[in-house]
Amino acid sequence: MIKEKRCKESFVVKTSIVQPPDTNNYGTLFGGKLMAYIDDTAAIAAMRHARKAVVTASTDSVDFLHPIYEGNSVCLEAYCTYTGRTSMEIFVKVIAENLLSGERNVCAISFLTMVAIDEDGRPAEVPQVIPESDEEKSLYATAKDRAENRKNRRKDS
Amino acid sequence: MIKEKRCKESFVVKTSIVQPPDTNNYGTLFGGKLMAYIDDTAAIAAMRHARKAVVTASTDSVDFLHPIYEGNSVCLEAYCTYTGRTSMEIFVKVIAENLLSGERNVCAISFLTMVAIDEDGRPAEVPQVIPESDEEKSLYATAKDRAENRKNRRKDS
Amino acid sequence: MIKEKRCKESFVVKTSIVQPPDTNNYGTLFGGKLMAYIDDTAAIAAMRHARKAVVTASTDSVDFLHPIYEGNSVCLEAYCTYTGRTSMEIFVKVIAENLLSGERNVCAISFLTMVAIDEDGRPAEVPQVIPESDEEKSLYATAKDRAENRKNRRKDS
Amino acid sequence: MIKEKRCKESFVVKTSIVQPPDTNNYGTLFGGKLMAYIDDTAAIAAMRHARKAVVTASTDSVDFLHPIYEGNSVCLEAYCTYTGRTSMEIFVKVIAENLLSGERNVCAISFLTMVAIDEDGRPAEVPQVIPESDEEKSLYATAKDRAENRKNRRKDS
Amino acid sequence: MIKEKRCKESFVVKTSIVQPPDTNNYGTLFGGKLMAYIDDTAAIAAMRHARKAVVTASTDSVDFLHPIYEGNSVCLEAYCTYTGRTSMEIFVKVIAENLLSGERNVCAISFLTMVAIDEDGRPAEVPQVIPESDEEKSLYATAKDRAENRKNRRKDS
Amino acid sequence: MIKEKRCKESFVVKTSIVQPPDTNNYGTLFGGKLMAYIDDTAAIAAMRHARKAVVTASTDSVDFLHPIYEGNSVCLEAYCTYTGRTSMEIFVKVIAENLLSGERNVCAISFLTMVAIDEDGRPAEVPQVIPESDEEKSLYATAKDRAENRKNRRKDS
Ligand SMILES: CC(C)(COP(=O)(O)OP(=O)(O)OC[C@H]1O[C@@H](n2cnc3c(N)ncnc32)[C@H](O)[C@@H]1OP(=O)(O)O)[C@@H](O)C(=O)NCCC(=O)NCCS
Ligand SMILES: CC(C)(COP(=O)(O)OP(=O)(O)OC[C@H]1O[C@@H](n2cnc3c(N)ncnc32)[C@H](O)[C@@H]1OP(=O)(O)O)[C@@H](O)C(=O)NCCC(=O)NCCS
Ligand SMILES: CC(C)(COP(=O)(O)OP(=O)(O)OC[C@H]1O[C@@H](n2cnc3c(N)ncnc32)[C@H](O)[C@@H]1OP(=O)(O)O)[C@@H](O)C(=O)NCCC(=O)NCCS
Ligand SMILES: CC(C)(COP(=O)(O)OP(=O)(O)OC[C@H]1O[C@@H](n2cnc3c(N)ncnc32)[C@H](O)[C@@H]1OP(=O)(O)O)[C@@H](O)C(=O)NCCC(=O)NCCS
Repeated sequence: MIKEKRCKESFVVKTSIVQPPDTNNYGTLFGGKLMAYIDDTAAIAAMRHARKAVVTASTDSVDFLHPIYEGNSVCLEAYCTYTGRTSMEIFVKVIAENLLSGERNVCAISFLTMVAIDEDGRPAEVPQVIPESDEEKSLYATAKDRAENRKNRRKDS
Repeated sequence: MIKEKRCKESFVVKTSIVQPPDTNNYGTLFGGKLMAYIDDTAAIAAMRHARKAVVTASTDSVDFLHPIYEGNSVCLEAYCTYTGRTSMEIFVKVIAENLLSGERNVCAISFLTMVAIDEDGRPAEVPQVIPESDEEKSLYATAKDRAENRKNRRKDS
Repeated sequence: MIKEKRCKESFVVKTSIVQPPDTNNYGTLFGGKLMAYIDDTAAIAAMRHARKAVVTASTDSVDFLHPIYEGNSVCLEAYCTYTGRTSMEIFVKVIAENLLSGERNVCAISFLTMVAIDEDGRPAEVPQVIPESDEEKSLYATAKDRAENRKNRRKDS
Repeated sequence: MIKEKRCKESFVVKTSIVQPPDTNNYGTLFGGKLMAYIDDTAAIAAMRHARKAVVTASTDSVDFLHPIYEGNSVCLEAYCTYTGRTSMEIFVKVIAENLLSGERNVCAISFLTMVAIDEDGRPAEVPQVIPESDEEKSLYATAKDRAENRKNRRKDS
Repeated sequence: MIKEKRCKESFVVKTSIVQPPDTNNYGTLFGGKLMAYIDDTAAIAAMRHARKAVVTASTDSVDFLHPIYEGNSVCLEAYCTYTGRTSMEIFVKVIAENLLSGERNVCAISFLTMVAIDEDGRPAEVPQVIPESDEEKSLYATAKDRAENRKNRRKDS
Repeated sequence: MIKEKRCKESFVVKTSIVQPPDTNNYGTLFGGKLMAYIDDTAAIAAMRHARKAVVTASTDSVDFLHPIYEGNSVCLEAYCTYTGRTSMEIFVKVIAENLLSGERNVCAISFLTMVAIDEDGRPAEVPQVIPESDEEKSLYATAKDRAENRKNRRKDS
């Protein structure tokens, strides 16, 4: 197995148009639909990093900062920001764009923990991650704290 | 507007069978698909409490404790546990059931904040909530802390 | 195999919001979509009773008493009302709710016959059913006649 | 409005392949999915006859005579067999085909009652129907009895 | 294997109503959705001709002559017009119908090349095709040129 | 209206995992499903270039060079390569990736013509396009010929 990989090797982009079936009576995207997009995109990033099957172990809290309207595009960008032995922290940024005006908004950010799984369905080792850009380095620096918080959260519940 | 409503007046149940399109290569439900179910069910509970349209303001972190297999049923139970002026905390419990053996597992719990919206799309007042059962009372008692945490989280980001 | 089970052991609830893709140009739910929901819910009830895989053998006639509008919730309740050797009669009640006003309507009721299937795809024995509530007892009492009617219907066709 | 139309003027054919998401663990089509196809096809036939919007008033009982397997094609044929003042009886025949062997089976037949609707959502008059082929004439001849049965059924419930 | 089959033995019809999720903000069908319908229908025609599994090798250019509106029916007709050793040319005609007025329009025609596949996933021989009607004969006569064009196209790219 | 825009201003990426409902019995993606993805992505690129609503006027021929397997990711990249007065040529490249091995394949390329539409549904002017990279320049240089071919094609049909 490769021992280390750069953040950008797992970088994934997924752009879609918000369609009527994904919207409520106000013509804005359902939060749950966005959560599904976030999980899809994070899974691809995690598989690109681990080159193994993955499952979602947890999603941290998500704040929905702006409504996303029917006909807008919604662009998700994801990559691996930190790794444990078998788990990967995946960062996902959601940017909505009014396709007629070009106006863009960060609508949500999210951290998911994905765990690599071997053929028998057991957690499997993953490469370490090498941050390069400023954003990557800053997210890497704060990742240990977030991992700690998740552990405490699991102990409490 | 009614001033106060009991928790159980917003109680919602949604049971589904896990179908192949919702599962990965291991035949287990995608985390994102479950997040979509959670949001759907929470929205119905919130509308039953507020009798108004609602949007998802945030979802707290969710830990996925057990995989949910194709052919299992997945049962979501949701109700309103706490209210602010215009926001409602909705608690969702996810129970998977092996339909052949009858074995049941709590696979995830989740707290969402839904905000009631008036005709102009602005936050609108909601009734206060009255907890009655032990679970309702215990969740109500701890809700203030969770609301505080969400506020701090928003300030930090 | 368990010899007898109570009606309420197979009781299932499925609540959903009516979304735009499920509605016609008048914004009301397609009959066919509701039939699909009814079949889904009945299958879960039947599997809870039989603890075996099941197939739909027939659905009795269904009258659509009220239109169900986009944005309404639709709640299906199903349970096993009667059993033969390998077949189960499942009763499904469909209740629509205007989520803004709280007004509720029984929109349809339906009786399906589901057959339990063993590993080789052959009909398999199911437990007998014990009615307890008044509704359960009344549906149980009339079930023999409905079963008789289905037999005659099949002979004629 | 045209006073009379021939059965074959409303004739509709819809052929599809049975895909994995429409099938259960045995790889056979869900009864509810077939009910949805039946309703879709019947609605097109009814609109071709009435040249108006339509809603489903009822579906008569349906017996599922043979399982339909993943990868089979399923062909639905529908046309208007009888009319009241505002209602139409639509006959739907479901034929499954094993695309590899060419073997075909009638898997279900169904009678639906569709009602034409004017711009205000009120029942609207429809043309009378003229049967020509033997099948059309035979279904037309027995339609009055079926209409009578539906009326009695509604009275009882 | 049968050596020759008539065009009409592979003839398939698929009629659907254009639903909101398949339409853009102008309420007209997405080109991509129509392409998916075209491919579905062509695959059934090809399997009826070859009585084998098939894959799409190519689609020729498609001009979208008229928009197709929500609530219209769209009727696809497909059959095999020409064969090589393992490939079949499938012709698909798309007719939209305003269900309220009865007005019909040919909205697109399309030629696809489908290749029959044996159990090991390798191209497999197909029966030759016998054109009978005028349209069949005329499409058969020009098919060789189209096949030649496709080969040149592949060489160039 | 802006008079000129660079190719890269319309650049769009959409990455997805191939799921079971999108695949045939061999576990490979349907050609029609890929055509739908291609059209979706092209529409976003065209709207980014025109900042107007768009419709698909035509798709040129597409050769499917390799099967795409369930569990692979499929990545579509699209941008505007050429413009007329109201029409845009959009180039789409489809790259499949085996997420476990990292192996990547160009599986199809496609040219679509999208037309910008004003509020009344009439063709509307679009900015000219400025090619910068080598690929952009080479596609721009050959675009006039492709446009000419499309016109001749329309005259012939
Ligand atoms: C995720 C899962 C495989 C972990 O299994 P486990 O038996 O707890 O395994 P371990 O204790 O060895 O933990 C494996 C890794 O996951 C991490 N982990 C486990 N639960 C976690 C959680 N809730 N949040 C974040 N990380 C978690 C551990 O910290 C460990 O990381 P490390 O190897 O980098 O140190 C298991 O809980 C599971 O299968 N959950 C369901 C996943 C799923 O199906 N998701 C979709 C639900 S719809
Ligand atoms: C939720 C939303 C309406 C709040 O609007 P706002 O301008 O912040 O309004 P206010 O400051 O008056 O807040 C209204 C309530 O929401 C609560 N709130 C706002 N953001 C929140 C968050 N991220 N988490 C929890 N509660 C939040 C406030 O505390 C307040 O509660 P209270 O009235 O009970 O005291 C707005 O942020 C929004 O539209 N977000 C997008 C919602 C959406 O479309 N979700 C799906 C995205 S795909
Ligand atoms: C189609 C496919 C099986 C052809 O395989 P191949 O190794 O090129 O096989 P061959 O060279 O023996 O060609 C087989 C036949 O296909 C034809 N063919 C191959 N590529 C073609 C194309 N792009 N357009 C038209 N016909 C084509 C050949 O002319 C030959 O026809 P014939 O037997 O009638 O003379 C292969 O290219 C493939 O699997 N493509 C992907 C199919 C797919 O998955 N489609 C959906 C993508 S999302
Ligand atoms: C595309 C459409 C708007 C063109 O309308 P029109 O009345 O032919 O308009 P024009 O003749 O002014 O042509 C407008 C532009 O489209 C181009 N065009 C028209 N048909 C075309 C075709 N089949 N292929 C490529 N370009 C085409 C013209 O060349 C012209 O380009 P230019 O302005 O850059 O010179 C019209 O044919 C239409 O609405 N088609 C259906 C679109 C649709 O609904 N697609 C999805 C089908 S499911």
